[in-house]
Amino acid sequence: MRLMPRLAAAAVFAVCAWLASPAAAQQAPPAALKAAAADSGLAYEIVAGLTTDVGARPAGTEADRRGRAWMLARLKSLGFANVRDEPFTLTAWIRNRESAEIVSPSPQRLVISGLGRSVGTPPDGIEAEVVRFADLDALRAAPDGSLAGKIAFIDGRRMTRSRLGADAGEGYPRRSRGAVEAARKGAVAALVRSVGSSAGRFAHTGGLRYADGVPRIPAAALAHADADQLARLIAAGRPVTVRLTMGATLHPGALSGNVIAEVPGGDLADEIVLLGAHLDSWDEGTGAVDDGAGVAIVTAAAKLIMDLPQRPRRTIRVVLFGSEELGLEGAVAYAKAHGGARHVIATEADFGAAPVWAIYSGVPEAMLPQIDRIAAELAPLGIERGHNRASGGEDLGPLKAAAQVPVVSLVQDGTHYFDLHHTPDDTLDKIDPAALRQNVQAFAIFAWMMANP
Amino acid sequence: MRLMPRLAAAAVFAVCAWLASPAAAQQAPPAALKAAAADSGLAYEIVAGLTTDVGARPAGTEADRRGRAWMLARLKSLGFANVRDEPFTLTAWIRNRESAEIVSPSPQRLVISGLGRSVGTPPDGIEAEVVRFADLDALRAAPDGSLAGKIAFIDGRRMTRSRLGADAGEGYPRRSRGAVEAARKGAVAALVRSVGSSAGRFAHTGGLRYADGVPRIPAAALAHADADQLARLIAAGRPVTVRLTMGATLHPGALSGNVIAEVPGGDLADEIVLLGAHLDSWDEGTGAVDDGAGVAIVTAAAKLIMDLPQRPRRTIRVVLFGSEELGLEGAVAYAKAHGGARHVIATEADFGAAPVWAIYSGVPEAMLPQIDRIAAELAPLGIERGHNRASGGEDLGPLKAAAQVPVVSLVQDGTHYFDLHHTPDDTLDKIDPAALRQNVQAFAIFAWMMANP
Repeated sequence: MRLMPRLAAAAVFAVCAWLASPAAAQQAPPAALKAAAADSGLAYEIVAGLTTDVGARPAGTEADRRGRAWMLARLKSLGFANVRDEPFTLTAWIRNRESAEIVSPSPQRLVISGLGRSVGTPPDGIEAEVVRFADLDALRAAPDGSLAGKIAFIDGRRMTRSRLGADAGEGYPRRSRGAVEAARKGAVAALVRSVGSSAGRFAHTGGLRYADGVPRIPAAALAHADADQLARLIAAGRPVTVRLTMGATLHPGALSGNVIAEVPGGDLADEIVLLGAHLDSWDEGTGAVDDGAGVAIVTAAAKLIMDLPQRPRRTIRVVLFGSEELGLEGAVAYAKAHGGARHVIATEADFGAAPVWAIYSGVPEAMLPQIDRIAAELAPLGIERGHNRASGGEDLGPLKAAAQVPVVSLVQDGTHYFDLHHTPDDTLDKIDPAALRQNVQAFAIFAWMMANP
Repeated sequence: MRLMPRLAAAAVFAVCAWLASPAAAQQAPPAALKAAAADSGLAYEIVAGLTTDVGARPAGTEADRRGRAWMLARLKSLGFANVRDEPFTLTAWIRNRESAEIVSPSPQRLVISGLGRSVGTPPDGIEAEVVRFADLDALRAAPDGSLAGKIAFIDGRRMTRSRLGADAGEGYPRRSRGAVEAARKGAVAALVRSVGSSAGRFAHTGGLRYADGVPRIPAAALAHADADQLARLIAAGRPVTVRLTMGATLHPGALSGNVIAEVPGGDLADEIVLLGAHLDSWDEGTGAVDDGAGVAIVTAAAKLIMDLPQRPRRTIRVVLFGSEELGLEGAVAYAKAHGGARHVIATEADFGAAPVWAIYSGVPEAMLPQIDRIAAELAPLGIERGHNRASGGEDLGPLKAAAQVPVVSLVQDGTHYFDLHHTPDDTLDKIDPAALRQNVQAFAIFAWMMANP
């Protein structure tokens, strides 16, 4: 999952006018489905296979192509219908080699992660004095031109852990906008404190955005320990010089794709229940928690429904979006191609692999009784019924904007999500197979009930 | 602290014949000392300064020189007597750039840390098929020549956490001896699962040893997530090829030194109470927990005693050993230069920064009542009286071997020590100032009582 400012997400939600939909009484999920989901090792098998056989899957790269091929083959072998790769293009970003070190007053290595879409530096790097700002607002308040020839260091605080990851928005602007604001003041590069809660020495990457008419300067995130170190050295009052070397390259016209598979519906086959996740990942981990887990959860949930003796009335469509992390290009392509289709509801698994603890909805009033019935079925899994203000997730944004699709969020426990998110530490060992099974149970029950009104 | 096989440490202990020493009744520590120690921020200040102003301090490097200069200046400014740097030479090891990646069946980066003293690879690295062994014994059982042209991967398990770090010995042989055993079978390089308990994706470095007459092949530790990944890929049955690139260089004749400072004694000034720690560190972290914390603890404890109105009867000598990590060259040099001096007792702080929970001794029977009295004074700090089989620590080994010096271990809680130990994650933020103060209290009470019989 990318970090999107929560206010912006709320605003997107607020402007959506929900279509009323008939409040049909769903069937209760069959006991066989519940039993199979509680016992299924399929999701873990998928995320283990994907992250082992392919590893990281940065959008538009050769690894992305291998990831899609792996998943297409897996979906076909599982027996899904209409398995396909719907291609789109994007500007890919490749990190290549990068490093940073304090040059003076005392040479020391810094742990960084170049931000997605950042330009690189010259081959020998950029060596300049660092000026620290307590936050992005402090940088914005600096006089124009005051950073000429300097590196801006936009500090902040380590993200506080919480189930909802509610603190994620706090740091997001410095990551997303830091480079632009620093360049406006004349800086030659930007360093930002990681937007993450990891206590380990990992820098958290993530996408930045440049602005037209503002010089594009390279930018990287610092691990918290290294941001602390830099802050202490600067506080001591002597000039601190850093060398930042980034080999990052941008590749317009790179190919990615949305991988799609279906459980065909029966009498209501043209009505779609969309289960989404994203297949691309950042490059430094193996994309296990973000979002191999989601890919595995929705695929396994749909497969369990497919294996029932009776097909669902509506079509269950698994959409594994490409390029969520870089710029939602996959979600935009999907909305463009399929915005006209009849999506009854959409949900997305993109918040890790910890247990689901709540069901939030973003549906028209008329649908609330349906969601409440699903919530009642989910309650034995430890899942609470939450509010009706859910945004549904990043990859559903463009579809919602295009077609006012109702959404549900099966909310995973995000307490440790931002420890791992966008770091080298996003690897398979962080996934608890039992928690993954609980997710599959929740998604399977939800999908089955929505597909069988 | 290095990992030394516990059996070997026990053997060193067993061959020591303890000198009987008079069981004089120590004075109780003054209330002023206890109060000052409970309130002192000095240790945190020292470890923060050392790790911020200097950072990592690999023995024999320019950073080591800066570390010694920093510490000498600090000891002088604190008012210690006989502050000096006793130089010695060693073969320094510099990591330089290194990387590893799976080349086939699916290109993926691996997180490694080259092992200390390892030779480097050719500039373009070594690319070869990997053969996995479940442990060092399995490698030893392989036929001679069976690894010709291959990379040996010596697997194992993640270290179990415990207060004593009792599991440390389990993996030590694969790190220390893996390269030699692999080379004996014809391997061109060795990869070993990290010897550490970190759940994060950090590789744990540490020294290896080559053997005469066996080719010196490069060797590196793999983070647990990467060892898992490699094991899974190999288990799938297809050949797995890895490229290992290490720029490591060895520098014979490099200069390091033991930094020494004293609180002069009174009527028994020629009798020494030695408080040790090591000033060098591995290169990837900043050497905060291993062993900036120890340096800070023993320095602060001695300084608090020095600040009392009355000088201690015996001399308290702070010895900050150089080159503990690479080969105990500092400890050997100290034992050679000072083995003839009258060390009444020696202790060392080299197990992190968590609270002391036990006092172990390795003293002649006649001294046991003294240690028991100290233990009684330490009990209010949550410190238990332990056994009399303490080794005393790595840096005290050569001195004990040379002069049968009695030792005490103020045993720190090692539960998370091997999470951080020898990794990039050994940074200041892992140190709890309150725990550091408790250490200073314990070391100050111990030193004061031993110095005032």
